[in-house]
Amino acid sequence: MTLQYPRRQQQLESLIQRLGLPENAPIQWQLLDLALTHSTLSAEDNYEQLEFVGDAVVKLASAEFLLETYPDLKVGDFTAMRSVLVSDRILALIADQYGFDRYLLVSPGAMADTAGRESRLADSLEAVLAALYLSTHTLQLVRPWLDPHFQQLSTEILADPARQNYKAALQNWTQGYQKTLPEYRTQEAGQTHNDPHRFTAEVWIQGQCLGRGTGRSRKAAEQAAAQEAFLALSRD
Amino acid sequence: MTLQYPRRQQQLESLIQRLGLPENAPIQWQLLDLALTHSTLSAEDNYEQLEFVGDAVVKLASAEFLLETYPDLKVGDFTAMRSVLVSDRILALIADQYGFDRYLLVSPGAMADTAGRESRLADSLEAVLAALYLSTHTLQLVRPWLDPHFQQLSTEILADPARQNYKAALQNWTQGYQKTLPEYRTQEAGQTHNDPHRFTAEVWIQGQCLGRGTGRSRKAAEQAAAQEAFLALSRD
Repeated sequence: MTLQYPRRQQQLESLIQRLGLPENAPIQWQLLDLALTHSTLSAEDNYEQLEFVGDAVVKLASAEFLLETYPDLKVGDFTAMRSVLVSDRILALIADQYGFDRYLLVSPGAMADTAGRESRLADSLEAVLAALYLSTHTLQLVRPWLDPHFQQLSTEILADPARQNYKAALQNWTQGYQKTLPEYRTQEAGQTHNDPHRFTAEVWIQGQCLGRGTGRSRKAAEQAAAQEAFLALSRD
Repeated sequence: MTLQYPRRQQQLESLIQRLGLPENAPIQWQLLDLALTHSTLSAEDNYEQLEFVGDAVVKLASAEFLLETYPDLKVGDFTAMRSVLVSDRILALIADQYGFDRYLLVSPGAMADTAGRESRLADSLEAVLAALYLSTHTLQLVRPWLDPHFQQLSTEILADPARQNYKAALQNWTQGYQKTLPEYRTQEAGQTHNDPHRFTAEVWIQGQCLGRGTGRSRKAAEQAAAQEAFLALSRD
């Protein structure tokens, strides 16, 4: 195999080592190379397609982690927790801990765009997750190093005292920081009593939909939407 | 192992046969049983947690399928096509072809809720995908029977003459059917020239956000959002 420049292979091997994966891990190096190439460097061969796959890989890895670690949690909690675990902000933090900046090939112009740094880091992490997944078609090269991050984050989230009443917590937050109230847009999606998807709610803050949820009651759907929004905001 | 009632094992084996999977496939029958149990039948042991995992399984399966089958497609096309492939409507159609109604344990009250049938079918298909995925931690029991559906659907989508100009196609549609125009909410998310995520757009129709997209230009982001909305609407 030939990578883009002579020392690239060594560079990628050093990342694999940092992730704690074994030296002889069956990695498709060309995919990993692609996963760490930004579109400003090559309009054809860059991480965009892998990022598309990686979006699903990180969702699956976090769902499996949550189901195994907290088998008794409600589905609303799973959904709210996953939306934090797979958020750009969290993925960028994880990528940063492994120094992705030094592995990502990017044009000097894009590098100067500091506002875009978070999404570059998050997107390239997703692409790397896809490259590792596609190397074995399992999560065996993903979960050993990603799970400890998820463990730490989910412990933090579960320790959050606001967890019991997100509508109140969200309202406190928006009143305190933005002098506005959250707006709920809630609909009855079905007619079945006790159906957990009977109601759907969105919560809007300053023209942006920040959370969605479903529930057996209007109130439950709104709590679920508030939870998603609150967890997202409180990580910022 | 003990399933909920004596003939359940046979019933589940007959579904596996219908899916075309080998008789000796390494299936976790208790998970499959759970995947086909609605929350109105058991508030504790039902498909909700598996559906949460299955949402990611079907996204991953469709992403892998699209990447393998159409390696030269643009990422915007992947995203738009996947949003159709994993939509409730399509998943319910697939579940219906395998007669999921006769495998899903559901209370008589919920059964009578015909409006909720589509989401019951889609949700239980997602849960079954999760049960099959978790049986091997690979997609080997999923893709053999799901890929042919994706193949047929994606061929249809790609043959769609509107594909080239979704903003125009969507406008024709809303003017014709609803006497309204789509509303685009477009933002500049970054500053980097040529960044495929520089702009983000949402398209709103009658108070609902029906599509989202990103692009290198305002126009490209809006086309991507229009595409997602148009493909969703044109499947209905």
